Amino acid sequence: MMRSKVLSLVPRATGVCRHMSTATKLTTVAVDDKTGIATLTMNRPPVNGLNLDLLRDLNQSIGEVEGNKSRGLILTSSNPTIFSAGLDILEMYKPDKDRIREFWTALQDVWLALYGSSVPTAAAINGHSPAGGCLLATSCEYRVMLPKFTIGLNETKLGIVAPKWFMSSFLSVLPRREAERALNQGRMFTTEEALSIGLIDEVAISKEQALDKCAQFIGTFAKVNPLARSLTKQQLRAVELQQLENERAQDLERFLFFVNQPSVQKGLGIYLESLKKKAKN
Amino acid sequence: MMRSKVLSLVPRATGVCRHMSTATKLTTVAVDDKTGIATLTMNRPPVNGLNLDLLRDLNQSIGEVEGNKSRGLILTSSNPTIFSAGLDILEMYKPDKDRIREFWTALQDVWLALYGSSVPTAAAINGHSPAGGCLLATSCEYRVMLPKFTIGLNETKLGIVAPKWFMSSFLSVLPRREAERALNQGRMFTTEEALSIGLIDEVAISKEQALDKCAQFIGTFAKVNPLARSLTKQQLRAVELQQLENERAQDLERFLFFVNQPSVQKGLGIYLESLKKKAKN
Amino acid sequence: MMRSKVLSLVPRATGVCRHMSTATKLTTVAVDDKTGIATLTMNRPPVNGLNLDLLRDLNQSIGEVEGNKSRGLILTSSNPTIFSAGLDILEMYKPDKDRIREFWTALQDVWLALYGSSVPTAAAINGHSPAGGCLLATSCEYRVMLPKFTIGLNETKLGIVAPKWFMSSFLSVLPRREAERALNQGRMFTTEEALSIGLIDEVAISKEQALDKCAQFIGTFAKVNPLARSLTKQQLRAVELQQLENERAQDLERFLFFVNQPSVQKGLGIYLESLKKKAKN
Repeated sequence: MMRSKVLSLVPRATGVCRHMSTATKLTTVAVDDKTGIATLTMNRPPVNGLNLDLLRDLNQSIGEVEGNKSRGLILTSSNPTIFSAGLDILEMYKPDKDRIREFWTALQDVWLALYGSSVPTAAAINGHSPAGGCLLATSCEYRVMLPKFTIGLNETKLGIVAPKWFMSSFLSVLPRREAERALNQGRMFTTEEALSIGLIDEVAISKEQALDKCAQFIGTFAKVNPLARSLTKQQLRAVELQQLENERAQDLERFLFFVNQPSVQKGLGIYLESLKKKAKN
Repeated sequence: MMRSKVLSLVPRATGVCRHMSTATKLTTVAVDDKTGIATLTMNRPPVNGLNLDLLRDLNQSIGEVEGNKSRGLILTSSNPTIFSAGLDILEMYKPDKDRIREFWTALQDVWLALYGSSVPTAAAINGHSPAGGCLLATSCEYRVMLPKFTIGLNETKLGIVAPKWFMSSFLSVLPRREAERALNQGRMFTTEEALSIGLIDEVAISKEQALDKCAQFIGTFAKVNPLARSLTKQQLRAVELQQLENERAQDLERFLFFVNQPSVQKGLGIYLESLKKKAKN
Repeated sequence: MMRSKVLSLVPRATGVCRHMSTATKLTTVAVDDKTGIATLTMNRPPVNGLNLDLLRDLNQSIGEVEGNKSRGLILTSSNPTIFSAGLDILEMYKPDKDRIREFWTALQDVWLALYGSSVPTAAAINGHSPAGGCLLATSCEYRVMLPKFTIGLNETKLGIVAPKWFMSSFLSVLPRREAERALNQGRMFTTEEALSIGLIDEVAISKEQALDKCAQFIGTFAKVNPLARSLTKQQLRAVELQQLENERAQDLERFLFFVNQPSVQKGLGIYLESLKKKAKN
């Protein structure tokens, strides 16, 4: 029995939200009455590209799950083949000066909220999960993935550099040697490879089974004191969380400097062209 | 040929030791004349609960082993089914204001002494080893465990939070991903699970064999320069040791604040009641 | 088709190089025209002992590879049974006051250049690789080793302490528990053991095959943006690199203090005697 919660879209006091055309929600939160587990579904066609709007909705939904005394959070996608394609390149290509700042700040917010979430988190990875998609998945505490998809931080293949906190999530899951090599290579792992290296924890044959397995993981905390658990998790992740908290402004400036390099803009332009051609064929 | 050393119980100059009724020693140190290896046995019935007295004796015995030019230290228990049940809850439930400070300070001392010990250290885990018991075991360099027991940092199941330095020991043994999950879950590992994950290094079928295997491990340092070894170990563990050294006072205050929360006191009370009932049945 | 580059030996402006008798180069760099990969070969008979001259040549050769737009760097040895025997003890035994400073500084330079190299690096370990040899190998991103050789940081067996940055390289390859134990033991791993623990990545049956496998690893970066790759690697290795940068002077003083201890000098003297006797038999 799933009770779908429609979130109220409260415009933020600070900053004008220019793209409020998305009156439809880009995320939904459904809490299972029996288990008390919240399923947060990303729903921004066609590929769950992380643009400012989706990031804001994600942030709000994570906040809601924190607030509604859920027993845990499962992150998944409404798309049958894409978990999330990562950062929306349209936010970075010839960007508006103000919006790109809001965009990156929202991404920082989402990571701080998800990686530092007080509730148990799991990702039901029901599709491809490159770059920002992999960031979301590795920020959770557990990962169940469907076969024949790929996952990884492939930034170097796109000519960009994953920020330190992307790497933090990755390094908290993989051994250093494996993490470093994969990051340098921009390597995408198949489901099977991801399982064998430990980037994911289990493979499921369907989305339903993936959600079940995530719920089972969250069930392992049934007899655990929620406050003690939350403080334990936050103590373990404090170094990484604190590092971004301390360096938010510099991290933003670093990103802006990088993304505004002519070579990067040129690269993004070429990439967008190739996507358009692909779409036509 | 084991020569048992009875340690002199010198009362400390500072602080009145209220529970000096334990005129009997709670630890013994026996040095094997042939191997030069010291076996430190915890002997506080019924479960080697780490109270102030046992912690002080442990600290004194570790200091003795450091001083007596032993080739190594093996930590074990006189109890056939419990290595150590961890911190004595009686020290934390409705605590005396001064004694609980001495208690926590003594625990810090033991960890600094054992984790930073200049001699090779190994734990012959001949019984259950939850919480503080696991802390002692993971502070050693090698672990041999008997079958059908359990080990782990199960603090979250007890409603408390393992301090950072408990986590340091744990993280120096297990991969980050495994350590984080187990800490969040308060997971107790069976001997078999502990071996497969790397939380212990070997399984022995008897206490005698466990001691032998620990001695063999210490024997691997036979041709190693003791000073170079000791400096190497301390350099490797410097970050964690220094962190506690720097934060001893705050760590104490954090513990006191936490343990004095009404909810924690209530939880400890309920737990003590359940232990009493168990003892009656 | 290999084009061998003879490097110009430019004497440095600062510091008198006393051992300039080595007019022959101690390293060679050969760039494969087809793959663009540079092979850096150590060639200081009899055992590639890392003395001031070899270190300077290494540093210069690494710099050259950085500058010549190579696709990657493979480090190997011209000796059929020794990759590198590590630091040349003659540099440390009854050392000249000025030269030993230059020696250690050159070693720091080599590590900073190799561990922080912007190009992909791999070691074709075609012989024994103790101590400093292991340092060079673990500073690369990939390791292929020939059978029946040994590798490890065996400093404690020699009565010395590997500096922090030696340990950094080691810890970026091995799990903490394994690294700590091996460092304390001064353990030398056989090729097979090194593979199973992850200290090396592959075994090759010949030097040619080892070079091929290294080239294949470097080939995995073919579709990766070189600048993004280099920035990613440097971000990952920044903590360790920065630590030595910040502590260069103290690290040098620590080494000088240590090496000048009478006990260490005595130990080195005994070791040198044993080497001489071995050579006679």
